[in-house]
Amino acid sequence: MWTKEDLLKKTEAQVTGERFTHILGVIDTAIRLAHRFGVDPEKAEIAAILHDYCKAWDAERMKESLLAHNDSSWLSYSAVLWHSPVAMYVAREEFQIDDLELLYAIYYHTTGRAAMTPLEKVIWVADYIEPNRNFPGVEQARALAENNLDQALLFGLSQTIKYLVDKGQAIYPLTFEAYNYYQLLRR
Amino acid sequence: MWTKEDLLKKTEAQVTGERFTHILGVIDTAIRLAHRFGVDPEKAEIAAILHDYCKAWDAERMKESLLAHNDSSWLSYSAVLWHSPVAMYVAREEFQIDDLELLYAIYYHTTGRAAMTPLEKVIWVADYIEPNRNFPGVEQARALAENNLDQALLFGLSQTIKYLVDKGQAIYPLTFEAYNYYQLLRR
Repeated sequence: MWTKEDLLKKTEAQVTGERFTHILGVIDTAIRLAHRFGVDPEKAEIAAILHDYCKAWDAERMKESLLAHNDSSWLSYSAVLWHSPVAMYVAREEFQIDDLELLYAIYYHTTGRAAMTPLEKVIWVADYIEPNRNFPGVEQARALAENNLDQALLFGLSQTIKYLVDKGQAIYPLTFEAYNYYQLLRR
Repeated sequence: MWTKEDLLKKTEAQVTGERFTHILGVIDTAIRLAHRFGVDPEKAEIAAILHDYCKAWDAERMKESLLAHNDSSWLSYSAVLWHSPVAMYVAREEFQIDDLELLYAIYYHTTGRAAMTPLEKVIWVADYIEPNRNFPGVEQARALAENNLDQALLFGLSQTIKYLVDKGQAIYPLTFEAYNYYQLLRR
């Protein structure tokens, strides 16, 4: 059986140094958010360690994994998204993680989705606001995450959609559904 | 049987003076775009006349029509959208229009949808760029519509999504699907 230290070492071997710095930031932030919002910090830590495990894999390798898992709908959208479902398959098959809540937090960490679990929200928001992130609006997202995870999430989803539209890219349907879900919940 | 003049008079009686001015602008623009892009200008004119027929109806009246037509999915989204499907029901039932292409151009004139017919695109874009419209980007939309209806449409859909996100409103799924469809078509 692996320890968290094992997972972290294996992750470090898969990604660039810059990416690993980001992952360390997500781990710290996810643990902090987990305590703040009543989520299991142990699960948050493991999901954070593994969420970007496949980030440096080439597209062909990710594509093979998606096809092997009959999960090809991702292939219609940007390859930037593919590392999330593929990391979930690694977590399940190489590290024998069978906790669905934890696996889903990895799977949906880039797109989000409607009706996310608290752990999914913690990982999504931690990924968005961790200390190495630096983009217009990140301070506002951090401030929202102090008090209200849904508001931080909706802010991040909104910014993400506008960013994709400005770049002339398609929006992954799960992201759109997440946006509408949390927007309508606010009413 | 009604003439186009009858339809225009009946429309004028349903809407405010300002809205009627907009409708006249959409009619002119739709006829012009129809000639430019090989669409039946007669159908474009009739769809343009009727597209905002129910714009001044109160929400309760539109809601009744949607419920009576088993078309309640619109009720989850902003009432600003409801006049489009309701105007289609009026066109079909009060004016006995049975041309589906024309009816759909009315029905989808606010949201758009994936894989629009040329007539639907003409009405959507005419509604967006008619001469009385005045918002940041309208000149760019008009310039695009000189040459490429799809580009004008995609520009309008993109601006609409960003506008809705900035206003903190849900995005109607058809609009999202239209955006992704025309974005992916560009590849």
